[in-house]
Amino acid sequence: MKLAVVGLGLIGGSMALDLKKCGYVSEVFGVDQSIENQQSALELKLVDKIVTLEGACKQSDIIIIATPVSSVITLLPRILDLINEHQTVLDVGSTKNLIIECVRNHKYRANFVATHPMAGTEFSGPSAAQEGLFCGKATVICDSLENHPDHLKKVNDMYLALKMRVIEMKSIDHDLHVAYVSHLSHISSFVLANTVLDKEKDASAIFNLASAGFESTVRLAKSSPEMWAPIFDQNQKNIVEALGDYIDRLKLFHESLKAHDYDQTKKYMYQSNEIKRILSQIQKTKEKE
Amino acid sequence: MKLAVVGLGLIGGSMALDLKKCGYVSEVFGVDQSIENQQSALELKLVDKIVTLEGACKQSDIIIIATPVSSVITLLPRILDLINEHQTVLDVGSTKNLIIECVRNHKYRANFVATHPMAGTEFSGPSAAQEGLFCGKATVICDSLENHPDHLKKVNDMYLALKMRVIEMKSIDHDLHVAYVSHLSHISSFVLANTVLDKEKDASAIFNLASAGFESTVRLAKSSPEMWAPIFDQNQKNIVEALGDYIDRLKLFHESLKAHDYDQTKKYMYQSNEIKRILSQIQKTKEKE
Repeated sequence: MKLAVVGLGLIGGSMALDLKKCGYVSEVFGVDQSIENQQSALELKLVDKIVTLEGACKQSDIIIIATPVSSVITLLPRILDLINEHQTVLDVGSTKNLIIECVRNHKYRANFVATHPMAGTEFSGPSAAQEGLFCGKATVICDSLENHPDHLKKVNDMYLALKMRVIEMKSIDHDLHVAYVSHLSHISSFVLANTVLDKEKDASAIFNLASAGFESTVRLAKSSPEMWAPIFDQNQKNIVEALGDYIDRLKLFHESLKAHDYDQTKKYMYQSNEIKRILSQIQKTKEKE
Repeated sequence: MKLAVVGLGLIGGSMALDLKKCGYVSEVFGVDQSIENQQSALELKLVDKIVTLEGACKQSDIIIIATPVSSVITLLPRILDLINEHQTVLDVGSTKNLIIECVRNHKYRANFVATHPMAGTEFSGPSAAQEGLFCGKATVICDSLENHPDHLKKVNDMYLALKMRVIEMKSIDHDLHVAYVSHLSHISSFVLANTVLDKEKDASAIFNLASAGFESTVRLAKSSPEMWAPIFDQNQKNIVEALGDYIDRLKLFHESLKAHDYDQTKKYMYQSNEIKRILSQIQKTKEKE
């Protein structure tokens, strides 16, 4: 089977690496508009060959779109225009509903599988690609009732080859859940970094006083704005809700601190501690796999 | 030299372990009001012997107070009442000004060194103690002009034995800086966990969709409310300011999302990316050590 990866960054590059290594595909074509990314992907042996989008659509059994979500909605209809009925297309973007909507009435809608592997790091570009990034993690497939069973099976098998747990979900539910469980984390981290950077202008206090806890909460603030701005934009309605909720709760915590309401402050923190149970469940599942 | 550690948790236990191992002290006495912690500290060989507070003050050259900061302000005056002029006392709490104020006029004020080692994890209790926790990290000593040089030297040498970088700072500056660089991270994480837990009541979406990014931003939400509520209370003024700043900036981000102001949203994120430079500097310093 031949694979094309459109967008040779962290996710696309890592998928290319592992799918070739495990033997699920025999040849990998890479498509990227940046000459630098093309060269880097070849040097890092993420792909066998750089081709044009048209070339990729001619020669591949599976085409993975791994660009920022703003490009997915322009590339996906073009790609579906170029393929035949046997070719399978999937995207790996962090938003799902709008992406599906943009090809809702395309004659090859059934060939397009909308997916979201829950893996990544705060780094980007071909050099961020790594083997085993997906192993043991979950991937979401959305609105699969609209897919032809053959195409769905091909994508499902591909994720199993990457050793991922496949979860099915409606795109509309996916977008709401990820607003809370993923997108909000990024905003809390981006804005935390901004708040601290602006207060600590000479940075020596950050340098001296930052502990592992600080590093952990601002880690996502290193993420690429070019990748995240389109996600926030496409999932705007849900993220506006999630961020509004977060701000409301921070205000309650603020009020409780201002009032020296020690018992209430503790009560909020004991509620937060419940996250321990869920994180340790996740940990246990990972260890089993 | 003989050491007493009052409060056998993560920090006290880890200091006891390393100070004995590196030979800076020959014997370690442990004081803790919890029988469970006493037994656990003996079993884990964090201390050689459990003694009373009075016993500790009779026999030790250095006494480390490693309890929640609410207990530091009640224990510290009692301990200074029990020592002689040759004995050195230090605390390791996350707030400094109020703690110093509570013994401002004590005749042994010069024996008390106010410190804050910038190390820890989200876990607590004697079983959370670990070797090497402090190695390569920074520790702050506050208002050292009020210390007798002999006592200051003893504490300074102790931190060098733990392989820490010693930074001097006014307690008032320390408390403002840590409000932004440490305490705010904890609040952002506690409240993020609350927001997500409340939305995702059945937790299966968290379980399925949580990525490493989510885990990293909510990690501190596992921290002990019994330790953090007193810190927030003692550093209330600064934390109210820091949290107010954070909320104001989140509101700006929220407005920019609501207005679909794509360029402004990206601009905020590019500003946050500046944190990369500082975190990589910290990383480089660690690697050198």
